[in-house]
Amino acid sequence: MEGIMLKKSRQLKRLLDSKQLEFLMEAHDGLSAKIVEEANFRGIWASGLCISASLGVRDNNEASWTQVLEVVEFMSDATAIPILLDADTGYGNFNNVRRLVRKLEQRGVAGMCIEDKLFPKTNSYISSEKQPLADIDEFCGKIKAAKDSQQDIDFCTIARVEAFIVGWGLAEALRRAEAYHDAGADGILIHSKLSVPDQVLAFMKEWKDTCPVVIVPTTYYSTPSQVFAEGGVSVVIWANQLLRSSISAMQRTSVKLYKEQTLLAVEKEIVPVKEVFRLQNADELKAAELRYLPAFDSSMQSQKE
Amino acid sequence: MEGIMLKKSRQLKRLLDSKQLEFLMEAHDGLSAKIVEEANFRGIWASGLCISASLGVRDNNEASWTQVLEVVEFMSDATAIPILLDADTGYGNFNNVRRLVRKLEQRGVAGMCIEDKLFPKTNSYISSEKQPLADIDEFCGKIKAAKDSQQDIDFCTIARVEAFIVGWGLAEALRRAEAYHDAGADGILIHSKLSVPDQVLAFMKEWKDTCPVVIVPTTYYSTPSQVFAEGGVSVVIWANQLLRSSISAMQRTSVKLYKEQTLLAVEKEIVPVKEVFRLQNADELKAAELRYLPAFDSSMQSQKE
Amino acid sequence: MEGIMLKKSRQLKRLLDSKQLEFLMEAHDGLSAKIVEEANFRGIWASGLCISASLGVRDNNEASWTQVLEVVEFMSDATAIPILLDADTGYGNFNNVRRLVRKLEQRGVAGMCIEDKLFPKTNSYISSEKQPLADIDEFCGKIKAAKDSQQDIDFCTIARVEAFIVGWGLAEALRRAEAYHDAGADGILIHSKLSVPDQVLAFMKEWKDTCPVVIVPTTYYSTPSQVFAEGGVSVVIWANQLLRSSISAMQRTSVKLYKEQTLLAVEKEIVPVKEVFRLQNADELKAAELRYLPAFDSSMQSQKE
Amino acid sequence: MEGIMLKKSRQLKRLLDSKQLEFLMEAHDGLSAKIVEEANFRGIWASGLCISASLGVRDNNEASWTQVLEVVEFMSDATAIPILLDADTGYGNFNNVRRLVRKLEQRGVAGMCIEDKLFPKTNSYISSEKQPLADIDEFCGKIKAAKDSQQDIDFCTIARVEAFIVGWGLAEALRRAEAYHDAGADGILIHSKLSVPDQVLAFMKEWKDTCPVVIVPTTYYSTPSQVFAEGGVSVVIWANQLLRSSISAMQRTSVKLYKEQTLLAVEKEIVPVKEVFRLQNADELKAAELRYLPAFDSSMQSQKE
Repeated sequence: MEGIMLKKSRQLKRLLDSKQLEFLMEAHDGLSAKIVEEANFRGIWASGLCISASLGVRDNNEASWTQVLEVVEFMSDATAIPILLDADTGYGNFNNVRRLVRKLEQRGVAGMCIEDKLFPKTNSYISSEKQPLADIDEFCGKIKAAKDSQQDIDFCTIARVEAFIVGWGLAEALRRAEAYHDAGADGILIHSKLSVPDQVLAFMKEWKDTCPVVIVPTTYYSTPSQVFAEGGVSVVIWANQLLRSSISAMQRTSVKLYKEQTLLAVEKEIVPVKEVFRLQNADELKAAELRYLPAFDSSMQSQKE
Repeated sequence: MEGIMLKKSRQLKRLLDSKQLEFLMEAHDGLSAKIVEEANFRGIWASGLCISASLGVRDNNEASWTQVLEVVEFMSDATAIPILLDADTGYGNFNNVRRLVRKLEQRGVAGMCIEDKLFPKTNSYISSEKQPLADIDEFCGKIKAAKDSQQDIDFCTIARVEAFIVGWGLAEALRRAEAYHDAGADGILIHSKLSVPDQVLAFMKEWKDTCPVVIVPTTYYSTPSQVFAEGGVSVVIWANQLLRSSISAMQRTSVKLYKEQTLLAVEKEIVPVKEVFRLQNADELKAAELRYLPAFDSSMQSQKE
Repeated sequence: MEGIMLKKSRQLKRLLDSKQLEFLMEAHDGLSAKIVEEANFRGIWASGLCISASLGVRDNNEASWTQVLEVVEFMSDATAIPILLDADTGYGNFNNVRRLVRKLEQRGVAGMCIEDKLFPKTNSYISSEKQPLADIDEFCGKIKAAKDSQQDIDFCTIARVEAFIVGWGLAEALRRAEAYHDAGADGILIHSKLSVPDQVLAFMKEWKDTCPVVIVPTTYYSTPSQVFAEGGVSVVIWANQLLRSSISAMQRTSVKLYKEQTLLAVEKEIVPVKEVFRLQNADELKAAELRYLPAFDSSMQSQKE
Repeated sequence: MEGIMLKKSRQLKRLLDSKQLEFLMEAHDGLSAKIVEEANFRGIWASGLCISASLGVRDNNEASWTQVLEVVEFMSDATAIPILLDADTGYGNFNNVRRLVRKLEQRGVAGMCIEDKLFPKTNSYISSEKQPLADIDEFCGKIKAAKDSQQDIDFCTIARVEAFIVGWGLAEALRRAEAYHDAGADGILIHSKLSVPDQVLAFMKEWKDTCPVVIVPTTYYSTPSQVFAEGGVSVVIWANQLLRSSISAMQRTSVKLYKEQTLLAVEKEIVPVKEVFRLQNADELKAAELRYLPAFDSSMQSQKE
């Protein structure tokens, strides 16, 4: 939009490499993506959980990868900041990953994060400890295939380590992170579902600054960001809070309207209709109509009363 | 889901023909549709404005009709109550309408509302008085084509009269409503953007109970529903309030998180992650896994530490 | 179309249970499906190889399952005879299969065939002997899930045994076929890539008429159908010949036109344009325009010269 | 693919500006596009008629614009030569055209041709003389909007003049062509459905070389290309012959197989299965598997017999 805007992938790369702690905010459709941008965040996390939930399906690859692609295309079209797509396992093997990278680049998506689970995946917060992970070599093949396929030098591939999630310890987490880094990953997302940041901080202590590390503190939400910064984390993802806040609001509004049967019950608590139009950039279209549409010839309509 | 559930189209037909005032609540994706159902509403309004806004595009047929169809399919899959699709002008001429009806029936959508504007449409709340309407005969042809195409006898086609919106008076509104009714419409949506219900009530006075009438009191929101009931209205649509409440919530949440840089700032105000899982019906899948998946053979994984 | 047409799924069921040898002909888009129907075939094989090839991708799940679904929807809309979809492995686990069944039923697809390979699959004619097959219990879970999910009692699920393809012998083929039959499969597709029917006939000898058997004689093409009939086979699939004949024709035509630079070179060898319109059923639309479109008011156009 | 390959849009621009007569060959899916490329054509015409026919629908905007977009994306992915999309009327007004241009650029489509008919369109070979054309100013607005929207300087917008098709004379054709050229069109497609090239040649005589002219000699097929070259035409489109040849072949093959019930009847006339694999570039995947997949550990499978 501005004259000298950085390409989105370059913007994401800079976030990863930034000296200060950076934040990505979750979005799940074009509208929420726009809201994240307007709140001044510098990047968007296109959450697999939130996209599937908003579609009305489960976070188990019930939506096809092209359905997810279409969602993220709408998100990308609506915004000028970079999007990191939560691409689950890559939706198949290395070959599916190659296709995905090309499709994401075309749509202006800045990067993707793939995780070392098996297809179809289960959400990390409900997966059990018994769940098998991807074979390390097979997953490294995916990362290599992704990096070899990108045509934009700045497209980012983040490798997500699920070792802690399924019950392994630090050694396994580090072993995987190192392998993925060696395979070419631009960053490591180290995931944990404890209510404290201990696993993540233990990992950071050993990892040092081998490459940028990304975290998702959904369950250890009470940890101050200062702790992450001091631990050496590069990027923090607020991974699902917009969706969750929209659920709270929509549940409240629908229950109220059902009970009270009048819009007066909610009108004051919700944005006006014209705010919807503003978010859709309706004014740009109005201006464009003046430029591109011939003046309406009212004689084409029969006379009004 | 229950053994003797009525088909969705029949449910919608009953709402239209009901003696008491009925309400449809707006939804724009699978998630919001599910929330409407859980609030005990008996039907859903799949709003064109809200679907386009949530996708991140404008309410001017920027999304293709098959993209809208996919949204409403997700909504239909997520719920057991009827959906009335706001189908704009029918996305083309009578032939496009025929295809649309068949596709909606396949996906379990109970009915559609088409309006007498021209393709591509402009939202009623921002369209100017100069905007031409559809030729009456041409629009009646669409209605006839819709009714002739349906295979499910209960599929509903509602004809939306935009005469008041573009500056015509009561006579034109009635003339159109009568023509549309004669062409086979199952109901008339009489639209007004005044802040008072005067146009709608004037219409009702003349219309009597020729056929069911639907209204959208977005701008005359302070009118008590009792007034609509006494006026003879059949169905009231709360047409965009879930989307608007979700915008309020997401804007608040994203601004707060950006400023405070800690999840503690919002955690208490938003539903927990497990509420997302509940809305996705994650438990059903867990139970199904026990039924359909062989027990995981942990010997396939190498030993844990 | 006719008054007392059988539902497509019932038609397919009857083909499977028929006393005489039946044939399915391959199609890969709406047009080829229509051509199969006009040639009097009683059913269509929606080939995974041919659909992917016509899209321009490989038979390795490069197209997403919803992209395949859209192709088969166009095919189903264009025809009144049953379609059996070659659904690869079911595009994931039992849960993906459940969704698939519901989506196919909505679109009027009569049945699907799933094979005991791993996702993403490799085409049987280029897969090597080393390729692992699905765990039998896991695959049986898919079949059970499919059968439990269908709402139309006649929807058919055929289980395809790939044991011969990857180098196993008769015992393994029979063991799998029996397990799949016990799990609820409506028929067994026993696949072989020998140039003679020996594997298939050996299987038939042991299998007897436990349940209907389907074969694909692409490589043992010189075996007379009489041999299959006597062996007890129920259905023969001509699995890719329409696509292959279209390739021959298009290669010839494009080479000729490139060289000779005149349409005279090909005009006599190809159907006229009006045959394209006939296949699209253009006449029906012309008739419908008379019914549903107001007569064109030529005064709306300025005078012609 | 080659190191110094020209961008597709630049390639198309060069064809338009070429001193010699150039040819575009029709394709309608990824496979036919690949065949055109292999026949050494320098560009592809993505025909609206042929795409709709192959989908199984009519050439009256029955397929949505995003369904067409998906077809042309597969075609673009499968080839390295430029594609000119037959984009009907642009699928709506100037605003729909703007979105279309951005989407085509993302998918690597080199240009589009829009025609001055009304949405939804009717095929030129079956449209009657009474059919109204687009208002000239409105259509010029579309062209301007297209040119203002492109981000790739070489993206081509061709304006198709339908004046001859609906019964107007040379003066109207020239008036429209000039207006469209002034509005920014990169070329004019002058369409005629006579069996002789008279209209087109009369147009060329007056038009001189104001800007490149494209023709579609489907009905005047017996005119030698030399005549077009001498008349000053830039590009000739063979607009539907691949589809028509595929229909001939598929009809013949399916009728034969139905009657003779043996593959021997057709095996010799059609390409072998391995030619399908070659067109899909199966070898590339095989090579990639060696690079990206870990060697299969056969110990994971139970012992074979």
